[in-house]
Amino acid sequence: MIVDPAKLSRKERYKLLTGTVVPRPIAWVSSMDPAGNLNLAPFSYFNAVSATPMVLMFSAGIHPDGRKKDTWHNVERVGEVVINLTNEETAEQMNRSATVLPAGESEFVWAGVTPAPSQTIRVPRVAEAPVSFECRLREIVVISEEPGGGAAIFGEVQCIHIRDEIYQDGYVLLEPYKPIGRLAGPQYTRVNDLFEMFRLPPPE
Amino acid sequence: MIVDPAKLSRKERYKLLTGTVVPRPIAWVSSMDPAGNLNLAPFSYFNAVSATPMVLMFSAGIHPDGRKKDTWHNVERVGEVVINLTNEETAEQMNRSATVLPAGESEFVWAGVTPAPSQTIRVPRVAEAPVSFECRLREIVVISEEPGGGAAIFGEVQCIHIRDEIYQDGYVLLEPYKPIGRLAGPQYTRVNDLFEMFRLPPPE
Repeated sequence: MIVDPAKLSRKERYKLLTGTVVPRPIAWVSSMDPAGNLNLAPFSYFNAVSATPMVLMFSAGIHPDGRKKDTWHNVERVGEVVINLTNEETAEQMNRSATVLPAGESEFVWAGVTPAPSQTIRVPRVAEAPVSFECRLREIVVISEEPGGGAAIFGEVQCIHIRDEIYQDGYVLLEPYKPIGRLAGPQYTRVNDLFEMFRLPPPE
Repeated sequence: MIVDPAKLSRKERYKLLTGTVVPRPIAWVSSMDPAGNLNLAPFSYFNAVSATPMVLMFSAGIHPDGRKKDTWHNVERVGEVVINLTNEETAEQMNRSATVLPAGESEFVWAGVTPAPSQTIRVPRVAEAPVSFECRLREIVVISEEPGGGAAIFGEVQCIHIRDEIYQDGYVLLEPYKPIGRLAGPQYTRVNDLFEMFRLPPPE
């Protein structure tokens, strides 16, 4: 089937994209406005971009009413953000933090997680997260400020918090980590059904 | 444990990043140089960025000898790229296309896949791929041209090819699709062990 994205509705484009580009890692992003009010929200348009320097990217969207998501607005003004990761253990709290709360209410409280001080920036991390990357804003690439659009937010990692049992001898261990991946709609996947493929050497 | 990324070696930074930011979706990217020589390679620093306009991003790195990966070099010169997706059925061919071949040899031949004409651009897609996004280059954000660095390549989707059985009534079906996710080292995950979480309404 050949599909012209311009002929789909905004919702159809979104469903096609979130259904095909899977499984997606989840950034569980803590941010702060200039007055110190905390925000926490998950984003699954997220990935690593570079290891040296260590740079991560997530995309934050626009609310149906045309407002930027709070995370985008906060990062733009404060220049700092923590990209926490989530896992099976923290999945429910992560999902609670996706609720859009009335102004002035904190997703930390609503989700039942604890802000813990960061080492290099003012924005706190999530104490319960298995991994947290303290980031300074590097660049914001605005794709569109219309509904359905968003901006790619690049953060440069200053400091990493990772649970001792997950990181041993330079390896990240999946068993204690128990990561999860985002699919479309309400669906998530556990990371249990593994296989291995080794890169082949070039032909002689 | 608190880790200062500046105190890790290049390899340690890479391993920490690819081990924690999981599971990653895989872009199986076909590109072409100005003379028409084809290239095919997988990238797992990849995700959607925006649905309206429909924009995807993948990051291409630098070879240990300091050269840009062919894909980056090609996209920069030709301004077009196809982001194919892969699945359980095409996993082996995708992995073969990761081999760095001598100049002038095509990964299409080595991987055993077929270049099929695109509708809107000159760069061909992979006929065997379950989904292909024909993209025009929108922007390249260079993070670093040193080894370990890379560039975020943003493509705007012009046309989508998707197998009939995967896309029905506006929904992408996982069962016929059978997507796979990238983990660290030689590891991949199937997407079988699912769970659901619905977004909660705001408190009253």
